Amino acid sequence: MKMEKRAIILFSSGLDSTTVLYYAMSKGYKCSCLIFDYGQKHKKEILSAVKIADSAKAEYSVIKINLPWSNDALTSKNKEIPVHKHLTKTVPSTYVPGRNTLFLSYALSFAQSINVRAIFIGVNSVDFSNYPDCTPKFIEAYNNVLKVLKTKIVIHAPLLNLNKAQIIKLGTKLNVPYKDTWTCYNGCEKPCMECDSCKLRAKGFKEAGINDPALD
Amino acid sequence: MKMEKRAIILFSSGLDSTTVLYYAMSKGYKCSCLIFDYGQKHKKEILSAVKIADSAKAEYSVIKINLPWSNDALTSKNKEIPVHKHLTKTVPSTYVPGRNTLFLSYALSFAQSINVRAIFIGVNSVDFSNYPDCTPKFIEAYNNVLKVLKTKIVIHAPLLNLNKAQIIKLGTKLNVPYKDTWTCYNGCEKPCMECDSCKLRAKGFKEAGINDPALD
Repeated sequence: MKMEKRAIILFSSGLDSTTVLYYAMSKGYKCSCLIFDYGQKHKKEILSAVKIADSAKAEYSVIKINLPWSNDALTSKNKEIPVHKHLTKTVPSTYVPGRNTLFLSYALSFAQSINVRAIFIGVNSVDFSNYPDCTPKFIEAYNNVLKVLKTKIVIHAPLLNLNKAQIIKLGTKLNVPYKDTWTCYNGCEKPCMECDSCKLRAKGFKEAGINDPALD
Repeated sequence: MKMEKRAIILFSSGLDSTTVLYYAMSKGYKCSCLIFDYGQKHKKEILSAVKIADSAKAEYSVIKINLPWSNDALTSKNKEIPVHKHLTKTVPSTYVPGRNTLFLSYALSFAQSINVRAIFIGVNSVDFSNYPDCTPKFIEAYNNVLKVLKTKIVIHAPLLNLNKAQIIKLGTKLNVPYKDTWTCYNGCEKPCMECDSCKLRAKGFKEAGINDPALD
């Protein structure tokens, strides 16, 4: 009997992870999405993630992560989401310490428990916010952890070396519902267009020569 | 001003992590214990951990980890804690996939958020249950993750190459309150003396020539 190809997708409803979900499906994987509620200031991305997973007929679980010590701008009420004229070359205040490491560790626990060998993550390190947990070296180091744990699990990061325009072009071919994705750090009715995340997205759509359907 | 030496201790109230807490205190660290409620079948170890941290005047947080997929013998109601005549050479059913990786990832998040550079973990790989997340290679691989994340955080595993008797002798010198520690996988009034964890502990006290005060 041929084993079913299954994958776990770290899924936030952002442009990148939604592209990765559709990419994995296009490669024949049956996907289980892990959606994390880690204390983000707004729940909009969680609701969007559930909606997209549902419409893609992918399984999903929402996992609550409690980080009582957090003091970054994405999760702490005392810190505002910064507005930078240009992207900083240092790590910005929106970096959540340990975030992708935690997400991957939950995915490892899930994958090993249900005997799945593929974990997909949407990190990319070209047009990105300078987060140290989105780099090729980080993915390589974490894959080495999976190896010394004697698992056969591998992290796949198919967007790692693509720029935002290339990601959008790939996703457009895969019919990614960009209209339903949520990228903005703020949880207002419409994307703020001022945070780093909105700016990177807008730059990508502009360079790809495609209109962002989420702004219609 | 001299910076206060602070450390985060992964703390379960077991023999090993309690020895590590006292070891770190003896080295001058002000300790913050992370106690994890990850769905263990009994809460006895959590209550013991709080009691020990309190009496050692160490700070602590109890962190709830939700693993809805878990199917190991420590957390799943459908699986009994195994009784082995001899320790298995394969990974036993009590192995919780991803457990130490998750614990270290929470510790990373905490340490980076509050600017602490030392994480202590009580793993040892001599008299142990053959868990792949208790080996020198695992600690080395995780330390490499911390390095590529550009943190200055280091995992300390001072018991890594000690056998159980050596750990108990070290702890006895450090006045570790072994009477209050909880090692047993089962949550009965007294340790079961049948599970792997009880057997390893009993072997250690016997080899050290010390009576286990928890059995008085």
